Amino acid sequence: MSTTELSSTSRTRLGRARERGLTDRTSLYEVLDAGMICHLGVVVDGLPRVIPTGYGRDGDILYLHGSTGARSLTEGSRQEVCVTVTHLDGIVLARSIFHHSVNYRSAMIYGTPRRVTDPDELLTALRAISERLAPGRWDAARPPTRRELAATAVLALPLEEASVKMRQGPPSDDEEDHSLGVWAGVLPVHQVFGEPVPDPRLRPGIPVPDHVRGRSAER
Amino acid sequence: MSTTELSSTSRTRLGRARERGLTDRTSLYEVLDAGMICHLGVVVDGLPRVIPTGYGRDGDILYLHGSTGARSLTEGSRQEVCVTVTHLDGIVLARSIFHHSVNYRSAMIYGTPRRVTDPDELLTALRAISERLAPGRWDAARPPTRRELAATAVLALPLEEASVKMRQGPPSDDEEDHSLGVWAGVLPVHQVFGEPVPDPRLRPGIPVPDHVRGRSAER
Repeated sequence: MSTTELSSTSRTRLGRARERGLTDRTSLYEVLDAGMICHLGVVVDGLPRVIPTGYGRDGDILYLHGSTGARSLTEGSRQEVCVTVTHLDGIVLARSIFHHSVNYRSAMIYGTPRRVTDPDELLTALRAISERLAPGRWDAARPPTRRELAATAVLALPLEEASVKMRQGPPSDDEEDHSLGVWAGVLPVHQVFGEPVPDPRLRPGIPVPDHVRGRSAER
Repeated sequence: MSTTELSSTSRTRLGRARERGLTDRTSLYEVLDAGMICHLGVVVDGLPRVIPTGYGRDGDILYLHGSTGARSLTEGSRQEVCVTVTHLDGIVLARSIFHHSVNYRSAMIYGTPRRVTDPDELLTALRAISERLAPGRWDAARPPTRRELAATAVLALPLEEASVKMRQGPPSDDEEDHSLGVWAGVLPVHQVFGEPVPDPRLRPGIPVPDHVRGRSAER
Protein backbone atom coordinates (compact mmCIF):
# COMPACT_ATOMS: atom_id res chain seq x y z
CA MET A 1 0.00 0.00 0.00
CA SER A 2 1.46 3.33 -0.97
CA THR A 3 0.67 6.44 1.00
CA THR A 4 -1.95 7.61 -1.45
CA GLU A 5 -3.46 4.40 -2.79
CA LEU A 6 -5.79 2.39 -0.67
CA SER A 7 -5.69 -1.36 -0.71
CA SER A 8 -7.72 -2.88 -3.50
CA THR A 9 -9.47 -6.15 -2.75
CA SER A 10 -12.39 -8.01 -4.22
CA ARG A 11 -14.62 -5.90 -2.02
CA THR A 12 -13.16 -2.53 -2.84
CA ARG A 13 -12.74 -3.17 -6.53
CA LEU A 14 -15.93 -1.74 -7.89
CA GLY A 15 -18.42 -3.72 -9.83
CA ARG A 16 -21.24 -2.05 -11.62
CA ALA A 17 -20.31 1.62 -11.38
CA ARG A 18 -16.57 1.59 -11.76
CA GLU A 19 -16.36 5.26 -12.68
CA ARG A 20 -17.83 6.18 -9.32
CA GLY A 21 -14.92 4.66 -7.41
CA LEU A 22 -11.95 6.61 -6.15
CA THR A 23 -9.00 5.00 -4.52
CA ASP A 24 -6.90 7.87 -3.35
CA ARG A 25 -6.42 8.59 0.29
CA THR A 26 -7.21 12.32 -0.03
CA SER A 27 -10.74 11.55 -1.19
CA LEU A 28 -11.21 9.14 1.70
CA TYR A 29 -10.11 11.73 4.22
CA GLU A 30 -12.35 14.38 2.66
CA VAL A 31 -15.41 12.16 2.96
CA LEU A 32 -14.58 11.18 6.54
CA ASP A 33 -13.74 14.72 7.61
CA ALA A 34 -17.05 16.06 6.29
CA GLY A 35 -19.20 13.75 8.41
CA MET A 36 -20.37 13.52 12.00
CA ILE A 37 -21.74 10.01 12.33
CA CYS A 38 -20.88 6.71 10.69
CA HIS A 39 -22.71 3.42 10.36
CA LEU A 40 -20.77 0.57 11.92
CA GLY A 41 -21.49 -2.90 10.60
CA VAL A 42 -20.71 -5.93 12.75
CA VAL A 43 -21.64 -9.59 12.70
CA VAL A 44 -23.35 -10.79 15.88
CA ASP A 45 -24.16 -14.49 16.13
CA GLY A 46 -23.65 -14.72 12.38
CA LEU A 47 -26.12 -11.94 11.62
CA PRO A 48 -25.48 -8.38 10.49
CA ARG A 49 -26.05 -5.38 12.73
CA VAL A 50 -25.69 -1.74 11.65
CA ILE A 51 -25.17 0.82 14.40
CA PRO A 52 -24.91 4.60 14.02
CA THR A 53 -22.12 6.06 16.12
CA GLY A 54 -19.66 8.93 16.38
CA TYR A 55 -16.17 8.79 14.97
CA GLY A 56 -13.04 10.82 14.46
CA ARG A 57 -9.86 10.54 12.47
CA ASP A 58 -6.29 11.01 13.60
CA GLY A 59 -3.94 10.56 10.66
CA ASP A 60 -4.61 7.13 9.20
CA ILE A 61 -6.54 5.80 12.17
CA LEU A 62 -10.32 5.98 12.46
CA TYR A 63 -11.63 6.06 16.03
CA LEU A 64 -15.14 4.85 16.78
CA HIS A 65 -17.07 5.89 19.85
CA GLY A 66 -18.60 3.17 21.97
CA SER A 67 -21.13 4.93 24.12
CA THR A 68 -23.95 3.31 22.20
CA GLY A 69 -24.11 -0.21 20.86
CA ALA A 70 -21.61 -1.19 23.52
CA ARG A 71 -22.14 -4.90 23.09
CA SER A 72 -21.62 -4.78 19.36
CA LEU A 73 -18.52 -2.63 19.70
CA THR A 74 -16.97 -5.00 22.17
CA GLU A 75 -17.73 -7.91 19.91
CA GLY A 76 -16.50 -5.80 17.02
CA SER A 77 -13.10 -5.53 18.65
CA ARG A 78 -12.59 -9.25 18.11
CA GLN A 79 -13.72 -9.41 14.50
CA GLU A 80 -13.78 -7.54 11.24
CA VAL A 81 -16.12 -4.60 10.84
CA CYS A 82 -17.31 -2.35 8.03
CA VAL A 83 -17.70 1.36 8.65
CA THR A 84 -19.66 3.46 6.17
CA VAL A 85 -19.94 7.25 6.06
CA THR A 86 -22.43 8.68 3.58
CA HIS A 87 -23.23 12.23 2.53
CA LEU A 88 -26.42 12.80 0.54
CA ASP A 89 -25.67 15.79 -1.71
CA GLY A 90 -28.63 15.94 -4.04
CA ILE A 91 -31.68 14.29 -5.54
CA VAL A 92 -31.13 13.60 -9.23
CA LEU A 93 -34.43 14.19 -11.00
CA ALA A 94 -34.36 12.60 -14.43
CA ARG A 95 -36.90 12.59 -17.26
CA SER A 96 -37.49 8.89 -16.63
CA ILE A 97 -38.16 7.21 -13.30
CA PHE A 98 -35.44 4.69 -14.13
CA HIS A 99 -32.67 7.29 -14.20
CA HIS A 100 -33.61 8.97 -10.94
CA SER A 101 -30.64 8.81 -8.65
CA VAL A 102 -28.81 10.62 -5.87
CA ASN A 103 -25.64 12.66 -5.78
CA TYR A 104 -23.60 11.44 -2.86
CA ARG A 105 -20.18 10.81 -1.39
CA SER A 106 -19.60 7.59 0.49
CA ALA A 107 -16.68 5.86 2.16
CA MET A 108 -16.56 2.22 3.25
CA ILE A 109 -13.73 1.07 5.49
CA TYR A 110 -12.98 -2.56 6.30
CA GLY A 111 -10.73 -3.84 9.03
CA THR A 112 -10.37 -5.50 12.39
CA PRO A 113 -10.45 -2.82 15.07
CA ARG A 114 -8.62 -2.94 18.35
CA ARG A 115 -9.94 -1.57 21.63
CA VAL A 116 -8.02 1.54 22.68
CA THR A 117 -6.59 0.98 26.16
CA ASP A 118 -3.50 3.20 26.32
CA PRO A 119 -4.50 6.32 28.32
CA ASP A 120 -2.68 8.75 26.04
CA GLU A 121 -4.17 7.21 22.89
CA LEU A 122 -7.60 7.21 24.51
CA LEU A 123 -7.36 10.96 25.01
CA THR A 124 -6.15 11.42 21.44
CA ALA A 125 -9.06 9.30 20.20
CA LEU A 126 -11.69 11.07 22.27
CA ARG A 127 -10.37 14.43 21.17
CA ALA A 128 -10.61 13.34 17.52
CA ILE A 129 -14.18 12.10 18.01
CA SER A 130 -15.20 15.18 20.00
CA GLU A 131 -13.71 17.66 17.54
CA ARG A 132 -15.35 15.89 14.59
CA LEU A 133 -18.77 16.34 16.17
CA ALA A 134 -18.21 19.61 18.01
CA PRO A 135 -15.10 21.54 17.01
CA GLY A 136 -13.76 23.74 19.79
CA ARG A 137 -15.39 21.84 22.63
CA TRP A 138 -12.29 19.92 23.69
CA ASP A 139 -10.70 23.12 24.98
CA ALA A 140 -13.97 24.65 26.22
CA ALA A 141 -15.54 21.86 28.28
CA ARG A 142 -14.40 20.00 31.38
CA PRO A 143 -11.94 17.24 30.40
CA PRO A 144 -12.73 13.59 31.10
CA THR A 145 -11.88 12.25 34.52
CA ARG A 146 -10.05 8.97 34.99
CA ARG A 147 -13.35 7.32 35.90
CA GLU A 148 -15.06 8.71 32.79
CA LEU A 149 -12.21 7.50 30.60
CA ALA A 150 -12.55 4.02 32.09
CA ALA A 151 -16.25 4.06 31.21
CA THR A 152 -15.63 4.98 27.57
CA ALA A 153 -15.07 2.33 24.92
CA VAL A 154 -13.20 3.43 21.81
CA LEU A 155 -12.18 1.29 18.87
CA ALA A 156 -9.27 2.07 16.57
CA LEU A 157 -9.55 1.03 12.93
CA PRO A 158 -6.57 1.48 10.59
CA LEU A 159 -7.48 3.19 7.31
CA GLU A 160 -5.93 0.51 5.14
CA GLU A 161 -8.72 -1.13 3.17
CA ALA A 162 -11.33 1.28 1.96
CA SER A 163 -13.34 2.44 -1.01
CA VAL A 164 -14.78 5.83 -1.82
CA LYS A 165 -17.70 6.20 -4.17
CA MET A 166 -19.47 9.29 -5.35
CA ARG A 167 -21.89 10.60 -7.91
CA GLN A 168 -22.16 14.27 -8.76
CA GLY A 169 -23.71 16.15 -11.66
CA PRO A 170 -26.88 16.24 -13.72
CA PRO A 171 -29.16 13.32 -14.60
CA SER A 172 -28.03 10.79 -17.23
CA ASP A 173 -31.18 10.38 -19.25
CA ASP A 174 -31.54 8.18 -22.29
CA GLU A 175 -30.89 10.20 -25.43
CA GLU A 176 -34.44 9.82 -26.74
CA ASP A 177 -35.95 11.06 -23.46
CA HIS A 178 -34.46 14.54 -23.86
CA SER A 179 -37.37 15.49 -26.07
CA LEU A 180 -39.88 14.84 -23.29
CA GLY A 181 -41.51 17.84 -21.68
CA VAL A 182 -40.32 16.77 -18.23
CA TRP A 183 -38.28 19.06 -15.99
CA ALA A 184 -34.95 17.50 -15.10
CA GLY A 185 -32.14 18.58 -12.85
CA VAL A 186 -30.73 18.24 -9.37
CA LEU A 187 -32.28 19.24 -6.07
CA PRO A 188 -29.30 19.90 -3.77
CA VAL A 189 -29.40 18.54 -0.22
CA HIS A 190 -27.47 20.22 2.57
CA GLN A 191 -26.94 19.51 6.26
CA VAL A 192 -27.08 22.80 8.13
CA PHE A 193 -27.00 23.96 11.74
CA GLY A 194 -29.86 25.85 13.33
CA GLU A 195 -29.79 28.48 16.03
CA PRO A 196 -28.12 27.22 19.23
CA VAL A 197 -30.63 26.31 21.95
CA PRO A 198 -29.22 27.12 25.42
CA ASP A 199 -29.61 24.53 28.16
CA PRO A 200 -32.57 25.62 30.35
CA ARG A 201 -30.19 25.33 33.30
CA LEU A 202 -27.49 27.51 31.73
CA ARG A 203 -26.04 30.00 34.21
CA PRO A 204 -26.97 33.60 33.31
CA GLY A 205 -24.36 35.64 31.56
CA ILE A 206 -22.63 32.89 29.57
CA PRO A 207 -22.79 33.87 25.88
CA VAL A 208 -22.93 31.40 23.00
CA PRO A 209 -19.26 30.83 22.18
CA ASP A 210 -17.88 31.51 18.72
CA HIS A 211 -17.15 27.81 18.10
CA VAL A 212 -20.90 27.17 18.36
CA ARG A 213 -22.25 30.40 16.89
CA GLY A 214 -19.95 30.11 13.88
CA ARG A 215 -21.48 26.84 12.76
CA SER A 216 -24.99 28.24 12.61
CA ALA A 217 -23.61 31.00 10.43
CA GLU A 218 -22.30 28.42 7.93
CA ARG A 219 -25.72 28.23 6.35
CA MET B 1 -47.13 -9.41 17.19
CA SER B 2 -49.92 -6.89 17.60
CA THR B 3 -50.45 -4.15 15.08
CA THR B 4 -48.76 -1.54 17.22
CA GLU B 5 -46.07 -3.46 19.07
CA LEU B 6 -42.97 -4.58 17.26
CA SER B 7 -41.42 -7.92 17.98
CA SER B 8 -39.06 -7.85 20.94
CA THR B 9 -36.04 -10.10 20.72
CA SER B 10 -32.65 -10.17 22.39
CA ARG B 11 -31.48 -7.71 19.75
CA THR B 12 -34.31 -5.23 19.98
CA ARG B 13 -34.57 -5.33 23.74
CA LEU B 14 -32.41 -2.42 24.66
CA GLY B 15 -29.41 -2.71 26.89
CA ARG B 16 -27.71 0.35 28.19
CA ALA B 17 -30.10 3.11 27.25
CA ARG B 18 -33.48 1.54 27.80
CA GLU B 19 -35.29 4.85 28.05
CA ARG B 20 -34.23 5.67 24.52
CA GLY B 21 -36.08 2.71 23.06
CA LEU B 22 -39.53 2.88 21.56
CA THR B 23 -41.43 -0.12 20.44
CA ASP B 24 -44.52 1.25 18.83
CA ARG B 25 -45.10 1.00 15.15
CA THR B 26 -46.05 4.66 14.71
CA SER B 27 -42.59 5.76 15.82
CA LEU B 28 -40.98 3.32 13.42
CA TYR B 29 -43.01 4.64 10.51
CA GLU B 30 -42.24 8.24 11.44
CA VAL B 31 -38.50 7.58 11.43
CA LEU B 32 -38.66 5.69 8.14
CA ASP B 33 -40.93 8.22 6.47
CA ALA B 34 -38.60 11.09 7.37
CA GLY B 35 -35.57 9.61 5.61
CA MET B 36 -34.26 9.26 2.08
CA ILE B 37 -31.47 6.73 2.35
CA CYS B 38 -30.85 3.75 4.61
CA HIS B 39 -27.76 1.75 5.48
CA LEU B 40 -28.17 -1.90 4.57
CA GLY B 41 -26.04 -4.39 6.48
CA VAL B 42 -25.33 -7.79 4.99
CA VAL B 43 -22.88 -10.58 5.69
CA VAL B 44 -20.68 -11.49 2.72
CA ASP B 45 -18.31 -14.43 3.14
CA GLY B 46 -18.82 -14.15 6.87
CA LEU B 47 -17.86 -10.47 6.99
CA PRO B 48 -20.07 -7.42 7.46
CA ARG B 49 -20.79 -4.96 4.68
CA VAL B 50 -22.77 -1.72 5.06
CA ILE B 51 -24.24 -0.22 1.90
CA PRO B 52 -26.15 3.06 1.57
CA THR B 53 -29.21 2.71 -0.64
CA GLY B 54 -32.66 4.10 -1.32
CA TYR B 55 -35.79 2.70 0.25
CA GLY B 56 -39.51 3.18 0.50
CA ARG B 57 -42.34 1.93 2.65
CA ASP B 58 -45.69 0.53 1.60
CA GLY B 59 -47.72 -0.35 4.67
CA ASP B 60 -45.69 -2.77 6.73
CA ILE B 61 -43.22 -3.65 3.98
CA LEU B 62 -39.91 -1.88 3.50
CA TYR B 63 -38.63 -1.90 -0.07
CA LEU B 64 -34.90 -1.56 -0.74
CA HIS B 65 -33.49 -0.38 -4.03
CA GLY B 66 -30.84 -2.49 -5.66
CA SER B 67 -29.25 -0.21 -8.23
CA THR B 68 -26.07 -0.03 -6.15
CA GLY B 69 -24.41 -2.80 -4.20
CA ALA B 70 -26.17 -5.25 -6.45
CA ARG B 71 -24.08 -8.22 -5.38
CA SER B 72 -24.75 -7.61 -1.73
CA LEU B 73 -28.44 -7.12 -2.35
CA THR B 74 -28.69 -10.36 -4.23
CA GLU B 75 -26.84 -12.17 -1.51
CA GLY B 76 -28.98 -10.32 0.99
CA SER B 77 -32.06 -11.87 -0.51
CA ARG B 78 -30.95 -15.28 0.74
CA GLN B 79 -29.99 -14.26 4.24
CA GLU B 80 -30.89 -11.99 7.08
CA VAL B 81 -30.10 -8.29 6.81
CA CYS B 82 -30.16 -5.27 9.10
CA VAL B 83 -31.43 -1.95 7.77
CA THR B 84 -30.70 1.21 9.73
CA VAL B 85 -32.14 4.68 9.12
CA THR B 86 -30.64 7.50 11.17
CA HIS B 87 -31.53 11.17 11.50
CA LEU B 88 -29.03 13.44 13.21
CA ASP B 89 -31.12 16.15 14.89
CA GLY B 90 -28.64 18.03 17.00
CA ILE B 91 -25.25 18.22 18.66
CA VAL B 92 -25.60 18.08 22.44
CA LEU B 93 -22.98 20.37 23.92
CA ALA B 94 -22.49 19.60 27.58
CA ARG B 95 -20.33 21.24 30.22
CA SER B 96 -18.14 18.13 30.30
CA ILE B 97 -16.63 16.33 27.32
CA PHE B 98 -18.01 13.08 28.72
CA HIS B 99 -21.64 14.16 28.44
CA HIS B 100 -21.40 15.43 24.88
CA SER B 101 -23.91 13.54 22.77
CA VAL B 102 -26.21 13.80 19.80
CA ASN B 103 -29.93 14.18 19.46
CA TYR B 104 -31.10 11.65 16.92
CA ARG B 105 -33.81 9.31 15.73
CA SER B 106 -32.82 5.88 14.51
CA ALA B 107 -34.61 2.76 13.34
CA MET B 108 -33.06 -0.68 12.95
CA ILE B 109 -34.98 -3.37 11.10
CA TYR B 110 -34.01 -7.03 11.01
CA GLY B 111 -35.33 -9.66 8.69
CA THR B 112 -34.80 -11.92 5.72
CA PRO B 113 -35.79 -10.03 2.59
CA ARG B 114 -37.23 -11.55 -0.53
CA ARG B 115 -36.54 -10.40 -4.06
CA VAL B 116 -39.59 -8.71 -5.61
CA THR B 117 -40.47 -10.48 -8.84
CA ASP B 118 -44.21 -9.94 -9.29
CA PRO B 119 -44.59 -7.14 -11.88
CA ASP B 120 -47.40 -5.39 -10.00
CA GLU B 121 -45.53 -5.48 -6.71
CA LEU B 122 -42.37 -4.27 -8.44
CA LEU B 123 -44.23 -1.18 -9.63
CA THR B 124 -45.66 -0.64 -6.14
CA ALA B 125 -42.18 -0.99 -4.67
CA LEU B 126 -40.51 1.35 -7.14
CA ARG B 127 -43.22 3.91 -6.63
CA ALA B 128 -42.68 3.75 -2.86
CA ILE B 129 -38.92 4.15 -3.27
CA SER B 130 -39.28 6.91 -5.84
CA GLU B 131 -41.81 8.90 -3.84
CA ARG B 132 -39.68 8.63 -0.68
CA LEU B 133 -36.76 10.25 -2.48
CA ALA B 134 -38.61 12.51 -4.86
CA PRO B 135 -42.31 13.02 -4.11
CA GLY B 136 -44.35 13.84 -7.18
CA ARG B 137 -41.93 12.35 -9.69
CA TRP B 138 -43.80 9.12 -10.22
CA ASP B 139 -46.58 10.96 -12.02
CA ALA B 140 -44.28 13.51 -13.68
CA ALA B 141 -41.55 11.37 -15.23
CA ARG B 142 -41.61 8.66 -17.88
CA PRO B 143 -42.66 5.35 -16.29
CA PRO B 144 -40.29 2.36 -16.32
CA THR B 145 -40.33 0.16 -19.41
CA ARG B 146 -40.49 -3.60 -19.16
CA ARG B 147 -36.75 -3.77 -19.88
CA GLU B 148 -35.97 -1.22 -17.17
CA LEU B 149 -38.09 -3.12 -14.67
CA ALA B 150 -36.19 -6.30 -15.49
CA ALA B 151 -32.92 -4.46 -14.80
CA THR B 152 -34.06 -3.25 -11.38
CA ALA B 153 -33.49 -5.33 -8.26
CA VAL B 154 -35.79 -4.61 -5.33
CA LEU B 155 -35.89 -6.38 -2.00
CA ALA B 156 -38.95 -6.54 0.24
CA LEU B 157 -38.39 -6.64 4.00
CA PRO B 158 -41.35 -7.13 6.34
CA LEU B 159 -41.44 -4.61 9.20
CA GLU B 160 -41.74 -7.24 11.90
CA GLU B 161 -38.62 -7.07 14.01
CA ALA B 162 -37.38 -3.56 14.62
CA SER B 163 -36.25 -1.13 17.24
CA VAL B 164 -36.49 2.64 17.34
CA LYS B 165 -34.14 4.70 19.45
CA MET B 166 -33.97 8.41 19.96
CA ARG B 167 -32.49 11.09 22.10
CA GLN B 168 -33.91 14.59 22.24
CA GLY B 169 -33.48 17.47 24.66
CA PRO B 170 -30.77 19.35 26.52
CA PRO B 171 -27.48 17.97 27.85
CA SER B 172 -27.49 15.76 30.94
CA ASP B 173 -24.56 17.17 32.88
CA ASP B 174 -23.40 15.96 36.25
CA GLU B 175 -25.02 18.04 38.98
CA GLU B 176 -21.73 19.52 40.18
CA ASP B 177 -20.78 20.65 36.66
CA HIS B 178 -23.66 23.12 36.46
CA SER B 179 -21.56 25.67 38.34
CA LEU B 180 -18.92 25.68 35.60
CA GLY B 181 -18.71 28.73 33.37
CA VAL B 182 -19.14 26.60 30.25
CA TRP B 183 -21.90 27.30 27.72
CA ALA B 184 -24.15 24.28 27.28
CA GLY B 185 -27.05 23.56 24.99
CA VAL B 186 -28.01 21.99 21.71
CA LEU B 187 -26.91 22.93 18.21
CA PRO B 188 -29.78 21.76 15.97
CA VAL B 189 -28.94 19.94 12.73
CA HIS B 190 -31.29 20.03 9.76
CA GLN B 191 -31.29 18.51 6.32
CA VAL B 192 -32.53 21.10 3.83
CA PHE B 193 -32.96 21.41 0.09
CA GLY B 194 -31.15 24.03 -1.96
CA GLU B 195 -32.25 25.80 -5.11
CA PRO B 196 -33.04 23.35 -7.92
CA VAL B 197 -30.28 23.15 -10.55
CA PRO B 198 -31.75 22.57 -14.03
CA ASP B 199 -30.14 19.96 -16.25
CA PRO B 200 -27.86 21.81 -18.74
CA ARG B 201 -29.73 19.96 -21.47
CA LEU B 202 -33.18 20.97 -20.21
CA ARG B 203 -35.48 22.04 -23.04
CA PRO B 204 -36.25 25.77 -22.85
CA GLY B 205 -39.60 26.75 -21.42
CA ILE B 206 -40.02 23.95 -18.90
CA PRO B 207 -40.47 25.56 -15.46
CA VAL B 208 -39.38 24.00 -12.18
CA PRO B 209 -42.48 22.05 -11.11
CA ASP B 210 -44.15 22.67 -7.77
CA HIS B 211 -43.20 19.23 -6.44
CA VAL B 212 -39.55 20.28 -6.75
CA ARG B 213 -39.83 23.98 -5.97
CA GLY B 214 -41.88 23.27 -2.87
CA ARG B 215 -39.13 21.29 -1.21
CA SER B 216 -36.60 24.12 -1.49
CA ALA B 217 -39.17 26.34 0.19
CA GLU B 218 -39.31 23.97 3.18
CA ARG B 219 -36.24 25.59 4.63
